[in-house]
Amino acid sequence: MIFASDNWSGAHPAVNAALARYSEGMASAYGTSELDKAVEKRFDEIFEREVAVFFVGTGTAANSLALASVNRPGGVVLCHREAHVVEDECGAPEFFTHGARMAPVDGPDGLIDPANLKREIARFKPDFVHAGQPMAVSISQPGEAGTLYAAETIETIAAIAHERGLTLHMDGARFANGLVATGLSPAEMTWKRGVDILSFGATKNGCWCAEAIVVFDPAKATQFPYIRKRGAQLFSKTRFVAAQFMAYFDDGLWLRMAGHANRMADRLRQALAASNAAREAWPTQSNEVFAVLPKDLAARMREAGAVFHDWNAPHSMPELAGEDETLVRLVTSWSTSEEDVVRFAGFLR
Amino acid sequence: MIFASDNWSGAHPAVNAALARYSEGMASAYGTSELDKAVEKRFDEIFEREVAVFFVGTGTAANSLALASVNRPGGVVLCHREAHVVEDECGAPEFFTHGARMAPVDGPDGLIDPANLKREIARFKPDFVHAGQPMAVSISQPGEAGTLYAAETIETIAAIAHERGLTLHMDGARFANGLVATGLSPAEMTWKRGVDILSFGATKNGCWCAEAIVVFDPAKATQFPYIRKRGAQLFSKTRFVAAQFMAYFDDGLWLRMAGHANRMADRLRQALAASNAAREAWPTQSNEVFAVLPKDLAARMREAGAVFHDWNAPHSMPELAGEDETLVRLVTSWSTSEEDVVRFAGFLR
Amino acid sequence: MIFASDNWSGAHPAVNAALARYSEGMASAYGTSELDKAVEKRFDEIFEREVAVFFVGTGTAANSLALASVNRPGGVVLCHREAHVVEDECGAPEFFTHGARMAPVDGPDGLIDPANLKREIARFKPDFVHAGQPMAVSISQPGEAGTLYAAETIETIAAIAHERGLTLHMDGARFANGLVATGLSPAEMTWKRGVDILSFGATKNGCWCAEAIVVFDPAKATQFPYIRKRGAQLFSKTRFVAAQFMAYFDDGLWLRMAGHANRMADRLRQALAASNAAREAWPTQSNEVFAVLPKDLAARMREAGAVFHDWNAPHSMPELAGEDETLVRLVTSWSTSEEDVVRFAGFLR
Amino acid sequence: MIFASDNWSGAHPAVNAALARYSEGMASAYGTSELDKAVEKRFDEIFEREVAVFFVGTGTAANSLALASVNRPGGVVLCHREAHVVEDECGAPEFFTHGARMAPVDGPDGLIDPANLKREIARFKPDFVHAGQPMAVSISQPGEAGTLYAAETIETIAAIAHERGLTLHMDGARFANGLVATGLSPAEMTWKRGVDILSFGATKNGCWCAEAIVVFDPAKATQFPYIRKRGAQLFSKTRFVAAQFMAYFDDGLWLRMAGHANRMADRLRQALAASNAAREAWPTQSNEVFAVLPKDLAARMREAGAVFHDWNAPHSMPELAGEDETLVRLVTSWSTSEEDVVRFAGFLR
Repeated sequence: MIFASDNWSGAHPAVNAALARYSEGMASAYGTSELDKAVEKRFDEIFEREVAVFFVGTGTAANSLALASVNRPGGVVLCHREAHVVEDECGAPEFFTHGARMAPVDGPDGLIDPANLKREIARFKPDFVHAGQPMAVSISQPGEAGTLYAAETIETIAAIAHERGLTLHMDGARFANGLVATGLSPAEMTWKRGVDILSFGATKNGCWCAEAIVVFDPAKATQFPYIRKRGAQLFSKTRFVAAQFMAYFDDGLWLRMAGHANRMADRLRQALAASNAAREAWPTQSNEVFAVLPKDLAARMREAGAVFHDWNAPHSMPELAGEDETLVRLVTSWSTSEEDVVRFAGFLR
Repeated sequence: MIFASDNWSGAHPAVNAALARYSEGMASAYGTSELDKAVEKRFDEIFEREVAVFFVGTGTAANSLALASVNRPGGVVLCHREAHVVEDECGAPEFFTHGARMAPVDGPDGLIDPANLKREIARFKPDFVHAGQPMAVSISQPGEAGTLYAAETIETIAAIAHERGLTLHMDGARFANGLVATGLSPAEMTWKRGVDILSFGATKNGCWCAEAIVVFDPAKATQFPYIRKRGAQLFSKTRFVAAQFMAYFDDGLWLRMAGHANRMADRLRQALAASNAAREAWPTQSNEVFAVLPKDLAARMREAGAVFHDWNAPHSMPELAGEDETLVRLVTSWSTSEEDVVRFAGFLR
Repeated sequence: MIFASDNWSGAHPAVNAALARYSEGMASAYGTSELDKAVEKRFDEIFEREVAVFFVGTGTAANSLALASVNRPGGVVLCHREAHVVEDECGAPEFFTHGARMAPVDGPDGLIDPANLKREIARFKPDFVHAGQPMAVSISQPGEAGTLYAAETIETIAAIAHERGLTLHMDGARFANGLVATGLSPAEMTWKRGVDILSFGATKNGCWCAEAIVVFDPAKATQFPYIRKRGAQLFSKTRFVAAQFMAYFDDGLWLRMAGHANRMADRLRQALAASNAAREAWPTQSNEVFAVLPKDLAARMREAGAVFHDWNAPHSMPELAGEDETLVRLVTSWSTSEEDVVRFAGFLR
Repeated sequence: MIFASDNWSGAHPAVNAALARYSEGMASAYGTSELDKAVEKRFDEIFEREVAVFFVGTGTAANSLALASVNRPGGVVLCHREAHVVEDECGAPEFFTHGARMAPVDGPDGLIDPANLKREIARFKPDFVHAGQPMAVSISQPGEAGTLYAAETIETIAAIAHERGLTLHMDGARFANGLVATGLSPAEMTWKRGVDILSFGATKNGCWCAEAIVVFDPAKATQFPYIRKRGAQLFSKTRFVAAQFMAYFDDGLWLRMAGHANRMADRLRQALAASNAAREAWPTQSNEVFAVLPKDLAARMREAGAVFHDWNAPHSMPELAGEDETLVRLVTSWSTSEEDVVRFAGFLR
């Protein structure tokens, strides 16, 4: 009953097979092989336009280098107060941007409220050097709370950002889960709604280590190769990332894996809804479930082998869990077994 | 006839097999799985002492984070004028150290001359804030020119460094090739001779992406987990690196692969020695051969399918290649075929 | 009627006289002259203990280098949501710390609420690398809202910080105003209550350019000379800063100047209290007055020559100023004339 | 007999008088006062064109921010091997540029040899990400060895730089001394010969603390205000710098002060030429004299009250001083007394 994180799962057999297949022979290094180029083309197809794609090794690298590439001196990134870039990357975005500030924007369910965003941006007067200069808005889809922005909300946020000349960045560590959950196309969930740069994650969804930065306007990516190399993220044998992506996209494997994860999460959600002992903390919309459990129930589940993490309550809901309760996160993945979910659900009854 | 770089080779089948084997089931993330721990133990055994090991994704990351972990404000790293950390990492060491200076030390054949090192360090007066403070010496074994330090020279360099309180870092991107070529044990080539921190590379020698930083005194590595995470180098599914190392060390695979590469380089060396048309630029000692070729011969070889890179002459030998000549680098790897070497040698006759 | 900022005032004649007096002859540079040492001794006397003092050129430099000197990789500084280090230094603290995060803590009247501080710190689990590591708490005295911490509150905050091994930094850009207002001694307002490092400002209070970082435990400042020089803050002719401090401290000039500024602010406060048109936004406690004015009154005052800045409402009070109102800041200084205050007060009636 | 450095001298009385004069009344802060603007206009006049001027507090800040403003990811600055930006700023240029590399170029007498510069730049192949990207050439006028570039050499260097799209930066810490020595106009010594950005120093030549960055094409300086503020170099009471510059430029005071310093250095040069005991290390061309002295003579002079610094021999002349000799630097300033020079010369006889 492992619900600790989707990165506790391994790689899909098709990913391993691709690695084995492409390991033969010599291929030019540093992103210049035929395979690298074929995968870049796959990205063009998936996003229905020419894009610039840069492979990196971690989601933290994707977010940090994406933001670094659009930074300005004294730059400020507006993001949700509990965004992953703020709370879970050990300051990497600040480090790679040489100190851009992650300015918190509040909003319910882990999502930026456009009205709050507008107000926060308005605090920055043009040419007022002391406050620094806003340079980007960063949203996650799905967000750190597993919830989703509607396409229209993305569009609204993009409009607010663009009005002030800010880049809109999307952290898509669980991009496939977001696609399946919303039913949107990759293009519809991103650039068609105003997203400028995307952290495209595949690691959590059945790969070993396959993350990419997608810049929707390639003309804006001319300095990126230097930013990536200086950031120690240019793999030599890039075909090992490319091979994973090849398998990932083939025959829709990525969407099938994400679909399974989402369904397993929905099962957990149903179990919570039916439970008298526990409850959802907020709506479950992708492959993460946040639940408030009685502490003794959580302890019993852990004794029985369940693995899941306690979670900090949002700043806006410090009293979310009562004194005898605990807020926990349950994550499902492509390899979560239905059996485990059923067993876990049993405890909730 | 691919001699462009050892990172043009793929991964050894045993590495792929390990990836497949360890991809099953759930395992805790971020370096905490059983497999991660087993590999850490393997490092202890290989180095005959308890060490602290940190997996990262690239050799550039290994060097940069290693140096960052021992940096001081205004820090200066003494290294060979043509060291990889200076000439081939796009400023990553400077970036991750927040601006440590890579101070060039001259020496023949790509190796630091201890007398020069001593003189360079002596330029820094204690407590003279303007010059900055030396904080590390960085050597490569084998070096950027494919040559090797004798164990005694490492010891001499370590003594010079330690006398002034400097850390001795070794860039071991081709560590196995150095081991096989010198016949030294891992311990004898490093900490027993005074090396404090090592960039341990396996990617070039038959892995996909497996690099590690080895800190010989674990007590000095307490901040390293934060340095690595902030540096965007903490993989989530670390077992994918661990699995590669497992296969790499098993049954001495790593040394066998390096031995093959070194032998292939030696064949090229012999062909050069016998050639009237071309010549070695300096002694071939591991798996890299530097040759001065007539430009028209180089062109003919490339037309015939040979792939190799032109190389900048050392600063100390600007006239190394004549006007009609070119300095080139030939690199062999675990997967270099003897047939290719023989064919290439034919051109040199 | 200039109430824009205390840095619109010039330097006190005694400061200029000291500059003239000490400009003669040669004196050793970079902080080593007799005068520099004499001033350092004055700091020891003022703080009733041996301290390490470092002159710098701006308050931003003082805060940024102070925080840089205690930073750790992935470091987090807890400070008030509207702290000067967050809102008014263009990201300099983040820049000089290589990306430390300024984590906002809420509290009324521009002051950190210790209970909130405790809760924020508790979000960071020990050894949980993802969140980064808290490394300092930074408070301002007086704060960005012109209000003051009681000595007991400083002590409480220090205890919370020290329990988790965090440094307590105080931004004392208006330190003298705080001293006069609270009646505390320099020692009582700082290290006797647990402050570890202080940004000591004199520029706003009658100097030209005289800021210092005071480290209460000199043993912790051994790397500071390098941090300052690398930060481009080591003046060559340091006696020009020392001379200003000499005059500043002589015969209690600094406290007299701050006392005047505070009295002038109190007059403004009284005028607001008596006004039907305008009101204090929160209590006036030092030399800054925050007032909510009808927009048309503010416009009329400005037409009549008054200069003052509009101010962003605190995040916790977005509706502080009504639609036809504006929140403004009025700052008094050593050179604010009583006549101007009386004239300004006239408008409020 | 103080020849330690020109920063051991104080400020000229006219500078102090200006400070006193402009200290009265209120003036808008952060570079927006009438006086600030008047001084900016003076710079336009002096350089015979519209320029963008930014005051900063130290020469290190001027160089570091100037280079930061033109940096690119993985940026490389080509400069003389013994340049001040390399050897005397504690890594500040690397720090403020987030790790740009200062790549050494050799040349006699502390001056870059254009042929060497060309060769160094040629090592960087376009779009070869590993080596980083050259972004600027930095020269000093006068150089760290007190010698001078001819206007034609500046032009040659500028042409080499511009051909590859590199900015030409001039470190003018002793700009006035260079002007007087060469007889060139400010325009002729800079932008008319291709200099793009200048560190304009006045501190060493009779001011307290007055440095400026001059960007000859103001359109390239749009981000500079943020770079300066983030770099903690935006003084609040900027009129204190402006006042110094006002006095400095008035009636040619700056050139008269520099002229005196240069003449005093020339006297020292003559004394060395006439000496049997000591010799010039290389030609004296501005206000710095480098001499090789017998160690015992140096000791006797110091006993008699002379103050001067030992100096590191250039890398290209490690044997410049014999075993019983020492290389020293003698610096004269606007306040060096002729009497001291005569007395010092006596020792050399």
